[in-house]
Amino acid sequence: MSKQKKPFPKWKYKLHEIIYGANTPTGKFFDIALLIAILVSIIVVMLESVTSIDQQYHKILNITEWAITILFTVEYIARIISIKKPRVYIFSFFGIVDLLSTIPKYLSLFLAGSHALVLLRALRLLRIFRILKLVRYLGASDKLSKALMASRAKISVFLFAVVILCTILGTVMYLVEGSSDSGFTSIPRSIYWAIVTLTTVGYGDIHPITPLGQFIASIIMILGYGIIAIPTGIVSAEYVKDAQRDKVHTNTQACSACNATNHIDDAKFCFECGNELNAYDEE
Amino acid sequence: MSKQKKPFPKWKYKLHEIIYGANTPTGKFFDIALLIAILVSIIVVMLESVTSIDQQYHKILNITEWAITILFTVEYIARIISIKKPRVYIFSFFGIVDLLSTIPKYLSLFLAGSHALVLLRALRLLRIFRILKLVRYLGASDKLSKALMASRAKISVFLFAVVILCTILGTVMYLVEGSSDSGFTSIPRSIYWAIVTLTTVGYGDIHPITPLGQFIASIIMILGYGIIAIPTGIVSAEYVKDAQRDKVHTNTQACSACNATNHIDDAKFCFECGNELNAYDEE
Amino acid sequence: MSKQKKPFPKWKYKLHEIIYGANTPTGKFFDIALLIAILVSIIVVMLESVTSIDQQYHKILNITEWAITILFTVEYIARIISIKKPRVYIFSFFGIVDLLSTIPKYLSLFLAGSHALVLLRALRLLRIFRILKLVRYLGASDKLSKALMASRAKISVFLFAVVILCTILGTVMYLVEGSSDSGFTSIPRSIYWAIVTLTTVGYGDIHPITPLGQFIASIIMILGYGIIAIPTGIVSAEYVKDAQRDKVHTNTQACSACNATNHIDDAKFCFECGNELNAYDEE
Amino acid sequence: MSKQKKPFPKWKYKLHEIIYGANTPTGKFFDIALLIAILVSIIVVMLESVTSIDQQYHKILNITEWAITILFTVEYIARIISIKKPRVYIFSFFGIVDLLSTIPKYLSLFLAGSHALVLLRALRLLRIFRILKLVRYLGASDKLSKALMASRAKISVFLFAVVILCTILGTVMYLVEGSSDSGFTSIPRSIYWAIVTLTTVGYGDIHPITPLGQFIASIIMILGYGIIAIPTGIVSAEYVKDAQRDKVHTNTQACSACNATNHIDDAKFCFECGNELNAYDEE
Repeated sequence: MSKQKKPFPKWKYKLHEIIYGANTPTGKFFDIALLIAILVSIIVVMLESVTSIDQQYHKILNITEWAITILFTVEYIARIISIKKPRVYIFSFFGIVDLLSTIPKYLSLFLAGSHALVLLRALRLLRIFRILKLVRYLGASDKLSKALMASRAKISVFLFAVVILCTILGTVMYLVEGSSDSGFTSIPRSIYWAIVTLTTVGYGDIHPITPLGQFIASIIMILGYGIIAIPTGIVSAEYVKDAQRDKVHTNTQACSACNATNHIDDAKFCFECGNELNAYDEE
Repeated sequence: MSKQKKPFPKWKYKLHEIIYGANTPTGKFFDIALLIAILVSIIVVMLESVTSIDQQYHKILNITEWAITILFTVEYIARIISIKKPRVYIFSFFGIVDLLSTIPKYLSLFLAGSHALVLLRALRLLRIFRILKLVRYLGASDKLSKALMASRAKISVFLFAVVILCTILGTVMYLVEGSSDSGFTSIPRSIYWAIVTLTTVGYGDIHPITPLGQFIASIIMILGYGIIAIPTGIVSAEYVKDAQRDKVHTNTQACSACNATNHIDDAKFCFECGNELNAYDEE
Repeated sequence: MSKQKKPFPKWKYKLHEIIYGANTPTGKFFDIALLIAILVSIIVVMLESVTSIDQQYHKILNITEWAITILFTVEYIARIISIKKPRVYIFSFFGIVDLLSTIPKYLSLFLAGSHALVLLRALRLLRIFRILKLVRYLGASDKLSKALMASRAKISVFLFAVVILCTILGTVMYLVEGSSDSGFTSIPRSIYWAIVTLTTVGYGDIHPITPLGQFIASIIMILGYGIIAIPTGIVSAEYVKDAQRDKVHTNTQACSACNATNHIDDAKFCFECGNELNAYDEE
Repeated sequence: MSKQKKPFPKWKYKLHEIIYGANTPTGKFFDIALLIAILVSIIVVMLESVTSIDQQYHKILNITEWAITILFTVEYIARIISIKKPRVYIFSFFGIVDLLSTIPKYLSLFLAGSHALVLLRALRLLRIFRILKLVRYLGASDKLSKALMASRAKISVFLFAVVILCTILGTVMYLVEGSSDSGFTSIPRSIYWAIVTLTTVGYGDIHPITPLGQFIASIIMILGYGIIAIPTGIVSAEYVKDAQRDKVHTNTQACSACNATNHIDDAKFCFECGNELNAYDEE
């Protein structure tokens, strides 16, 4: 933040404005173009994974991928050059994501081989993290993240309790259904089933077939139905608290002496300096 | 809204009152008759799609459909004639829906042919949009739509975040389960699975079979269990805020002596200065 | 309510006290005994429906059923005799339920026959409505029912909107998936699938197999994930409103002049009679 | 609580501090070590239930189990010795859990035999209750448990109502679908299905195939979609009430001049009379 380090060239300022900012028309155009490029690359990676499409359009998909990869490489270098403190960008969350989403395609060149191909495809897929770039263009939804932050601890305790509950319930079901052919072949599998059930997902790949198993499963399901109310209650309360803090601002008066705001609704004197509030407005 | 344009005939006024209004007995009867006709036409289209029923009662269903289609055509023309500014109706949401729900049956006449029949059936089915007409008779649930409007932006951000999360989780599961026979054959399919799981739908058509896949799936499910709290929290808070705004505005009286507001519902005297509240209004 | 009609014998008063009341020890014992009898009869009906159990213990189950049925008949007659206005009981909700839960067993005697047996079993099962008797012993949860009553209209609108949405989505899926072998064989079936999906039940008996179908299904699921927040938001707000009405009681002052309570938090004068509130406490 | 009973040796005090407390470094280390031992033993029990892993690493798993069991035995005895009133610990929830999670391994020694082995495995699995020990290290989430306690009665009524509803719906579906091959073979199974459906789990092991059955199932699902809002609403309201109680009590100051309360958090002067708030406390 100190500006006395080096003489920073003017074109870098402009580049910075275009790449990092979105206020100028050029900056806006750059952001939109980048957004489209990211979306295209995501779709290309997806289509490549579909065998029938990959066989028919392999060449086109490959060229598109290379074009976007080079574009992203240029962009990455430009980001480093245009910033005053490159380290801040490189080790930031998006700096790492940008790097990780550009490398895989290059790695696929050197790590060629007959057996390593499957692994290479895996490396390719890592580029899907480019999607995280989208987060940047989402805009900060402060309230959402604030409410989540405030209820993070409570929700963690809740989710931990759910995991413990699922472990016990899974073990009980393993004992009850283990000898039948219903798929409860081991405790981990039974815990997996308990999670599938308690979260009301219910694949049906594993399901109880003995009457006792179905009875216990019913209790778990009704339990899960009641439990789902807890995280919702937590987040709701956090949001409502937030909304009420907003409500405090109904009184938009500012003290004429010390300029303090946030007075309660029928305040007559400033809570900060003791100055009479309404007197000056009405006299 | 200007009434000086043309001399508007009296019978059009009456027709308008019957078709658009529901205050007069004739208008009420018209609305109910239309509602029944819409419901009948929906049931007929549904029954036609059931092969066994269509084969037996094809003629009756076809005649009913034609009868209702002609009825709706007459109604559509009547709506245009009876209104002062037909364009407002034609290009309104319901104007377009009315047109789209009447055309398909006529189109099925001209677009006859041996191969086009399948397509025609598709055109026929478009008439299901007649259902949207029902929305009109639902009555405006202002509060519901207001709360949804207010939280629209937040819920959009949330749903967008869910889509991104599902894309990443789907890719991870493709890498983990791709080589097994569990149905994770491509990234789009894996993303489809991630959505099915995170939203707690859980069809079971695709489900993990490897231990690692089941472990990751369990985490996704517990995550989804916690995430479902967010949209609920948003809407709840919006509703509660609304309810609080109501509470404040219930008694809009202001004391004639000290001008204090925010009196409770049945207050007779000002809580601030002891002045009688209603006296002045009624005397 | 008028007591001048007929001389009501004393033993009927006592019987009424035992059957309808739960304050005396005899009345309490009667209620608990009835509760146990209802639970036993429910379990017997359930066990009869399980083929393997019915074959082994048919006689015992049948005798138990007859014993409870006669007991319930006696109770039903006693209820009619002991009340002053039998019509009020007979045509009340529980009067009808009591009758409907006693008749089926008797009907099974007269409607004997080789072919009608299956139907008879159906009549037998109607006795399960005895369970509704349990509702009586549940105790009134006023707040729950009040909150539900208040949000009934809103939730009805919501559920109606969900049905319309499912009809449209079902039709769209019929057009997309109808030609494939994925089970979307008719519009009603497709609507059934849309409901299964939107409510996040997800049986998996019908599920999309074409890429487009899976894409649309994904949108429906994410939509359903967002929509589920609405009824929760409605009920939550209704409950919170209720809780806030409670909050108004924070100020526990009672006017020394007119004894009115429920003053707002910083009230100085009684809202009912204009009497100064705090003066008397402090002076 | 009376300290005059016996002379309590100093080393027992220190042991108590280490085992029950977590303030000293040694006490903290002990807690963490115990936590790791519990986690290891859980994983070992889980792995033993997986046939393929158990066959390969049976010996290692068995030794680890014995090591941890002895460790837990020593810990259990130490807990009894170090406490002044052993009975309080032994008959407390965690005292019982600690005992139940240590015994099974010893029991497996005496109850050996060819046929009883399956049962022994069941006894082994009881050690999974060691997990409950984790609850102790979770930390008390007072608010969560308080809100749950407050809404316990309401949620019980709700869950009871859900069970009754499922019983009736299950019976209706048994009558409708019983004769088809869709799995509704008995009333208990049909009730199991109703619970699976209403809680939106939806395994798909049992699902309606007749049009009427699918229609009723659709109604149940939409009902379940609306019903899920109730427990959430209850818990949310309880949480919000809690949050509001917090808001009121944040600043408990009362003005020394006019006695006004309900000042905002950082208030320096009374909003009612302008008197300085903190001055008197600090001077």
